Amino acid sequence: MLAMADAVLHDALVSGEVLALIPARAQVINVGKRCGQKSSTQEQINDLLVRLASSGNLVVRLKGGDPLIFGRAGEELDALRAAGLEVEIVPGVTAALAAAAQAQVSLTDRRTADQVLVVSGHREPGKTGSEWYRMVTSRTTVVVYMPGEYFGIAEDLLRAGMSASTPCAIISRALSSAEQSYQTTLGLLHRAPVLPSPSILIAGETLAAASQELQSFYLNRVPLQGAFSSLPFSPVL
Amino acid sequence: MLAMADAVLHDALVSGEVLALIPARAQVINVGKRCGQKSSTQEQINDLLVRLASSGNLVVRLKGGDPLIFGRAGEELDALRAAGLEVEIVPGVTAALAAAAQAQVSLTDRRTADQVLVVSGHREPGKTGSEWYRMVTSRTTVVVYMPGEYFGIAEDLLRAGMSASTPCAIISRALSSAEQSYQTTLGLLHRAPVLPSPSILIAGETLAAASQELQSFYLNRVPLQGAFSSLPFSPVL
Repeated sequence: MLAMADAVLHDALVSGEVLALIPARAQVINVGKRCGQKSSTQEQINDLLVRLASSGNLVVRLKGGDPLIFGRAGEELDALRAAGLEVEIVPGVTAALAAAAQAQVSLTDRRTADQVLVVSGHREPGKTGSEWYRMVTSRTTVVVYMPGEYFGIAEDLLRAGMSASTPCAIISRALSSAEQSYQTTLGLLHRAPVLPSPSILIAGETLAAASQELQSFYLNRVPLQGAFSSLPFSPVL
Repeated sequence: MLAMADAVLHDALVSGEVLALIPARAQVINVGKRCGQKSSTQEQINDLLVRLASSGNLVVRLKGGDPLIFGRAGEELDALRAAGLEVEIVPGVTAALAAAAQAQVSLTDRRTADQVLVVSGHREPGKTGSEWYRMVTSRTTVVVYMPGEYFGIAEDLLRAGMSASTPCAIISRALSSAEQSYQTTLGLLHRAPVLPSPSILIAGETLAAASQELQSFYLNRVPLQGAFSSLPFSPVL
């Protein structure tokens, strides 16, 4: 689809490798949101999509991750439908899955985690929280997109009855060359370092098995303790 | 990684197109579970993985979808870690995202859906339900893997306080040539046709926008009403 595009509207998070696949003849527009922009930006994107597609262009809306999880695709789809335009959606690897792959943790596990709750730490200005923390059980893996500062999340999860010993991991820029992760427990989460955005917070007992892995992973990224390359070779799965 | 594999253990759901990428020299083992097999199968897979990797082979464990969502990767990872073997995980598109892409529905939407709860309709023999339905609010999108028969799920969600008018979609074999979908409401879900496995059930207000799309999608698959190809051409996003 990308190879046939007349116009591509992309976000700030799309990697250079993917952008390189856009044909030279296509119009390329970076509509990535930046801090400080007004909230009308989403409407501008909707209008631009409709205008370009209505004039007969094959338009690709390119997002980092999967468009249907915290990607505002719902509003763009509505605008396109209202204009009578036909749409095809190509799914992607959402940040929760990239972070879990980096942390080598299964988000579900029949021994410890029956369900996954995917939430956002971001609050719309002027909007109260959705009280999602009430939904948590000890057999839930909680994945928080855009965790922001961790104090409020830790407080919510502890108040919901999750144990202070519940393992937590913060995974930053998963599967990129700048990936970092940090593991802690819910009780100590408020002391965790704020890792570069975009990041994902995972909390749940399923992390217990992965904790050892994550710890060594994080240490490998601390300059003075780089031990990864000195590990004996093992077959890679 | 697949191109370098000495051995590949794959599930029943891996497509022929992906299997065709396995190099001819690799040992290929279909470990896909079939109905009626004993529960020791997971242990047999773990043992096989460890045995093959311990003898110096580069082993790829190939699963349909993403391995970290209802993929039993946790148990396989534990076995490999216990044997001191190093692992790399490549994330995939999990069934929830494929189904949402087919249904053209954003799983989150700041207007209607703050969170996504991912659960399984499958019950381990002898295990009681996890009461996940207590975790649902009207601003939750519920995604059920392996929904089985719909009656119990509908009952659970209604008991949790979700409205009988909540839109629901069943998506079968998403993004394959045999894809089918059906849309209904929670109150009428028990009357829905059982679509071929694997299927995904999505319930939540975010589906309201997509309902029109889904209905026409389903109708397109009813032989007498095939109207898809007669739609006027519109640019494809």
